[in-house]
Order: sequence, then structure tokens, then C-alpha cells
Amino acid sequence: MTTVDEHLAAVLDQITPVREVTLPLAQAHGLVLTQDVTSPVDLPRFANSAMDGYAVRAADVAGASPESPKLVPVAGDIPAGDGEGHTLGEGMTWRIMTGAPMPEEADAIVKVEDTDGHSHEVLISASVEPGTHVRRAGEDVRAGERILSAGSRIGPAQVAVLASAGVAEVTVRDAVRVVVLSTGDELVPVGEPVGPGQIHDSNGPMLAALVRAAGHYTTHVGHLPDDEKSIKKELDHHLTSADLVITSGGVSKGAYDAVKAVLTGAGSMEFTEVDMQPGKPQGFGLLGRRKVPVFTLPGNPVSVLVSFEVFVRPALARLSEQRYEQVTVPAVVLSGWTSPAGRQQYHRVRLLRDVSGAYAAEPAGGPGSHLVAGLAVADGLAIVPAEESEVLTGSQVQVLPLRPLWEIEAELAQESATDQDGAEGAGSEAGRPRGRHRGAS
Amino acid sequence: MTTVDEHLAAVLDQITPVREVTLPLAQAHGLVLTQDVTSPVDLPRFANSAMDGYAVRAADVAGASPESPKLVPVAGDIPAGDGEGHTLGEGMTWRIMTGAPMPEEADAIVKVEDTDGHSHEVLISASVEPGTHVRRAGEDVRAGERILSAGSRIGPAQVAVLASAGVAEVTVRDAVRVVVLSTGDELVPVGEPVGPGQIHDSNGPMLAALVRAAGHYTTHVGHLPDDEKSIKKELDHHLTSADLVITSGGVSKGAYDAVKAVLTGAGSMEFTEVDMQPGKPQGFGLLGRRKVPVFTLPGNPVSVLVSFEVFVRPALARLSEQRYEQVTVPAVVLSGWTSPAGRQQYHRVRLLRDVSGAYAAEPAGGPGSHLVAGLAVADGLAIVPAEESEVLTGSQVQVLPLRPLWEIEAELAQESATDQDGAEGAGSEAGRPRGRHRGAS
Repeated sequence: MTTVDEHLAAVLDQITPVREVTLPLAQAHGLVLTQDVTSPVDLPRFANSAMDGYAVRAADVAGASPESPKLVPVAGDIPAGDGEGHTLGEGMTWRIMTGAPMPEEADAIVKVEDTDGHSHEVLISASVEPGTHVRRAGEDVRAGERILSAGSRIGPAQVAVLASAGVAEVTVRDAVRVVVLSTGDELVPVGEPVGPGQIHDSNGPMLAALVRAAGHYTTHVGHLPDDEKSIKKELDHHLTSADLVITSGGVSKGAYDAVKAVLTGAGSMEFTEVDMQPGKPQGFGLLGRRKVPVFTLPGNPVSVLVSFEVFVRPALARLSEQRYEQVTVPAVVLSGWTSPAGRQQYHRVRLLRDVSGAYAAEPAGGPGSHLVAGLAVADGLAIVPAEESEVLTGSQVQVLPLRPLWEIEAELAQESATDQDGAEGAGSEAGRPRGRHRGAS
Repeated sequence: MTTVDEHLAAVLDQITPVREVTLPLAQAHGLVLTQDVTSPVDLPRFANSAMDGYAVRAADVAGASPESPKLVPVAGDIPAGDGEGHTLGEGMTWRIMTGAPMPEEADAIVKVEDTDGHSHEVLISASVEPGTHVRRAGEDVRAGERILSAGSRIGPAQVAVLASAGVAEVTVRDAVRVVVLSTGDELVPVGEPVGPGQIHDSNGPMLAALVRAAGHYTTHVGHLPDDEKSIKKELDHHLTSADLVITSGGVSKGAYDAVKAVLTGAGSMEFTEVDMQPGKPQGFGLLGRRKVPVFTLPGNPVSVLVSFEVFVRPALARLSEQRYEQVTVPAVVLSGWTSPAGRQQYHRVRLLRDVSGAYAAEPAGGPGSHLVAGLAVADGLAIVPAEESEVLTGSQVQVLPLRPLWEIEAELAQESATDQDGAEGAGSEAGRPRGRHRGAS
């Protein structure tokens, strides 16, 4: 058998990032830069006022105070966006708005609160040092300076710096185009009636949601029949355009496991028994002329979810060149369970809060990997190392959250709100992120 | 002055969730159920095999073992999806695939590994208890049983249980339609040339990315000129369809702050000085016949980002009825800084790993809230309570992450990989989520 880490390493070793593309900034959010980006301009572009106030020579208002204010004639207004290029006459001032260009010869701003705010003659009641409330050109970034490195993912703050610098297009790893295919003649798409012996496909819609939640997207969510010829034809079709194909089902020991039959020996496909529970039967390889990575996941919904989190999510990260590391939270076990010897177990748990403020974990749903009701109420997967065969009550486990922490924290806050306002005070010794400011209740 | 918590409470008090809609399941991912959902069917729908193997009466194979296997005639194959409705003849077996319906009279499955796998007569070398490897109808969910409660957000696992039960449509809070408007005559959209005194708009694209990263979407990202009549007209237009309007800029003390001039006294708009840094000038209210919530944020990019995280993100959660609580991580301060007395400070920091494995925080970028370069390299915002005026080196702060933890953890793992493999071993006393399995390097 292969360990989880060995299989993951074998998968990642075969994956190379998708193509580079140059995109308008508005379409690049979430993608990863493949080149350093330098600013073509100084930021700020020009010296400008940090406050609404009056542009002055600091020397002209030396000694001004509330007791002895100085009356200064106002040359006019400089609103933000003013491109006139004003100059400050001797002993004068300009009324100026935040972001407006400094007039030549001015070296400081007196903020409006330290004046009477008038527009013809202004009474200035504070002195300022040269440079006060002035944003100098290039003080943030110099033209030619690197603002983002290759490998940076473009989140909201990166959008802001690129837009500020006027970078309208960026070269990034393209979005990953994923095809999801559920296999099995018993499957019917949700929305269509099921006959005897048939069930609705849940893996396809779930995988599409998982791909989307990970920030990628599906170009096709469909179905493979249990017929080798049709499987081959349908796969060949998707291999011409997909960046990643994920199938579920059809890969265990049955006489009708047609996906495995078709793919055995194809490309670099390998079918592996991984010492994990659930998710033992894993298949992965590169297929077709374009060497498209293909995952063949087991058919049970819980196995699919676990396989996605453990193998597919890191593969998507590598395809898109995202820096990715699985993040777990520690939790104290509220009531123990057993784990199969020699297999790393991913056990569905609900997260609660124990008296010390730390997370506590209790099993959610039954042990069968076909049980979806328990999956829907689980907060995470407790990871039990292969060498442990029992998880003791009171011991500590690492839990991979299946829902965003902001949602888990909000529910815990809601539950504890009945006895006390538990969010504050518990401190951080508890070994967990801390929730604040309930958004909805 | 108003505290952050007071202002947030005042905002949330005025917000009611958006309309309910009934959507196909595939379009409901990420949205919140407004009604309990019950399963119309048993899950599993019918008794079926949990393994590839042979359906038997347990009594018929009693005593079978590798030393004394039993030879049993095979009536045929039952593949998954078979709707024929077979019955098990006495002393017979059916070869059966995972998920295929159990034949009448059979009460257990012998898995294929405990047989010779033949299709006419099979040699069975293990006995089984009644019920072995059988998934009973309704053992997961009974028809009529509640599978999800009102208030549940539809994540991937919830998609799976809904699809399994054949629930093709769900009633949810609709997606939130956000309009983003940047104000100021100095602003030019990225991609267009800037003239003297002008700058590229960075707040609009950043807010659009923030809205999207929070799981919502923008229907319009545009611009308001500094002219009261145009502002009024443009706002009125968006108030007919938007669920939320976010403006940035035009709300401080300047003579040209037209947004504030137009909106003062309109609807329930209030302009408030919040004791925070950055982000002091906040405006919020309900406008128009549809009572659309409108945020008027300050104009500096850093202030916009902080205001979004602190006020807009929880408001979006309430609009969509998501359970939301701000999640912070604790960090040890690597080199201290000062904080303005009486104002809650949100200080940009980078996160590092200290020797104990805990997060360590060091200031990122300069103090000015117009500085975007530092923002783009910050990992989070350290929250300094209003009553503290100095953040001491070695003290602990709570940090609101600005990037996903999986990305921060991956970068920390990469940095520490040069000296040692730091991810394991540090344990959870460190008070932080733990990263595992590097996805990309």
C-alpha cells in the first residue's frame, strides 16, 4: 500500500501549471502572476495633499496659533483632479482638497480644522513643519520599482496596487478548466425521475461545488455510462480542452468497473490502493496528447469529498501555481472512536467549544462512506494517523475544516450566547483562531 | 465619537436579508436556505450492496472458509442500475456490484475478495452474518426526515445531500447584487490614460474583488463625478435594482465632498466619526423607495479595505443571511508600534513564524493610508484596541488575515523549508491553525 503523502507526492510530481495568459486586470482576480510587475510610474504620481486644507510655505505661517492666527489671502481652490499646475505666490495660500496636486513652491498643508475655512482670506491658527500632510511623489513606489513578484496571487490588495500603478493587463496562469464526470448506469441527474435500481447523481454537483469553492471552475459536469466504448469517446472529447478531469465511481473491484478497464495502461494512469479511510482506491495519470491530469476517485460521496480535499485541492493549486498548504485546527476529542490499523483515517466531526475555549470534536454521522446526511452536518475531518488504531476521549486531533471558519465560529458564538458572551476573554492559549463581531444571528 | 462595535451594531440593525428565490440546485451553491428541507425519499432509496461480491442468504454459506469453501451456482449478474427486481433462489447466489439493488430473499454480501470471482459457479471461502455489506433502505435518512435546516448555507456537502435526495430546487436568500461607485473627478478607470492631476481608480476594482472574495458579486463597478446633480441621478438609477451600494471617497471635510453634500439628510443616511484608524469618516443609511443599504467609505485604499472588512463584510453576511463572525489569529509582536489613543487601530502586518511555531507579526508598509505597496504585501491587520496607545514588542495581538490561511501557511512552510521541515512537530500549543501538505512550491 501507498501512504497518503506518497500518493500526493506522486500526483504533484506529474503536474505542471496551466498556460500563461495576458488578461485585463478585472479578469485576473484570484490568478497567479507569472512575471514580476514593476510600476511604470511613481506612486503617488505627483505631490498631493493628504488632507482637505490650505497649501502654504511653512515659513509663511510660522508662529500661527489660536491666540495669534495669521490672515492669509487665498489664491483660489485646487480640487482633486485639477491639472492646471498652480504656483503659490509669496504670502498667499491655495485652498486644496485631499488628493489634489500641490501647487509649486508650497511645502506644507494646514488642515481645514486649523483654519476658519474661508475661501478669500483664511485665518490660519496653527503653524506647520515643511512636509506636513504632503504626500510626496514616489514616496510609496518609485517608477521602475517592483510592486509584485512572480508567484503572487492577485487578491483584492494586489488589485489595488496594480490599478493604482495603471497596470491594465497582467500575465498570469490561466483559470483551470475542470471537467467532472460521474460514472455508473444507475446514476440520473438531479431533476430527472429515477427508475427502479437508479439513484440521483450527487458526486457531480458536489465536485462542481468543491471546484468552485476552491476558486476554480467547471466547464462540464456530466456522466459516463458503464460502457467502455462510450467512456473512451467521451473522455477523448474532454481531453482536447480540459485542464483537469475528475471522475468518480467505476474504479473498484467490480466486473462492471468500466472506467478502470478503459484506463488501465492508458497514458501514465496508475491505480493505487492508498492506506487511507475512506478513499482507498485512487487512480491518477496524464492522458492524451495534451497530457491532461485525470483523477479517478471512488464512488461514495464521502470518499469523493475526502479524496478531493487530500489530493485534488493541492493538484488544482499546482495547476494554477497557487501556494497552498492544507490548514487544520486542533481539537480535543469529546468521545473517542476507533480507526483501522495502518490506514490514515479522515473522520467526520462536529466542532464544539470546550470549557477552556478550545475546539472540541465529536463524531458526526455514521461510519459508512455512503452516508451523506452526516456529511452535511460535519464541520470537518479529524485526521487520524495510520499508526493509531484508537482515538481516545480527551486526546487531541487535527481537524481539516469542511466549512469556512467564519461560519463555524458564528454558529459556536450563537450557541454560547445563551449562557454567556463567550467570544471575548477566552484568550488565544486555546490554540484556535478567535471569532469576533457576529455578522448575523 | 462612536466605537467600532457601536457603529457595526447600528449598521446591522438596519439591514434585512434580501428576497427569497427558488433556484435550481446547481445555482444555489453558497446561498442560504430559508426553509427546512425534508427528504422526499429514503436514503439509500433501496437496499443495496456496499461491496462488489455475491448476494447470499447468510445461512446458505454458514461454515464456509478457505479450508472448506462452498461451491454455489450463480443466477446471474446484478449491475448497479439494474431495475429488474431479482429474487434469490434457494441455495443460489447473484454476482452483484456496489450500489446494485439486493435481490429479494438475500440478506448478506460476500465480498469478491472472499471468492474465486467466477460467474457461473462461485467458490465462497468465508461465512457472513446477516446484514453484512448490505446498505439498508432508509438507514441514512427516512422519507419525510429533515435533511437540512433553514439557515444552512449550501456548501459542497449540502449540495451532495440535496442531490442524493433528488431535491432539484431550493428556496434560498438570493445572491446579493452589489454596486460599487468610486467618487472624485481626479479618477480615471485603469486602462485609460491619466492627465495632469489625475490618478487611476484603485478602490473600484479592489472593492469588486473584495465583494467577489466574500462570495457575492457586483452588477456595476463605476464612477461618480464630483457634481451633485450627476451623483443624484446616478445613485437614483442604481437604487432601483441594487441590494447594496458601496461608494468610496467624497465624504471628508473638503469643500468638494459632493457625495456627503448630496446624501446628508437623505433616507436614513448618517455620517459618523468612528474611533478607528484608518477609516474614521463612515457613512451608512437606507436610501430610496427600496430602502437600499448604502455605505459611503473614505477614499484612501487602506481605509476602504479596513472599512470593508470591519463593516461591509458583516453587512453582506446579514443581507444573505450567512452566519458570519470575524476570525482572527493570535500573533506575537516582533517589533512594536504606537497606536492613536482612543482609536481602534487596524495595523498592516506581515505574519512570520516564531521559534515556538506561533505566528509572529511585524509591521508592513508605512503608516499613511494612501500607501498601497505595503498593503499588497501585508498578510493581515493587527487589531489594537482603542484603550492601547502602544503595542509592545513581545506582546500578543489578534490579526485579521487579509489572505487565505492556506496561502500564508504555504509561504511560511516554504520559508522554513530551508532550515528544517517546520510544519510537523511544532504542535498546537502555538495557538494557530496548522499547515500540512504543501501544494505548490
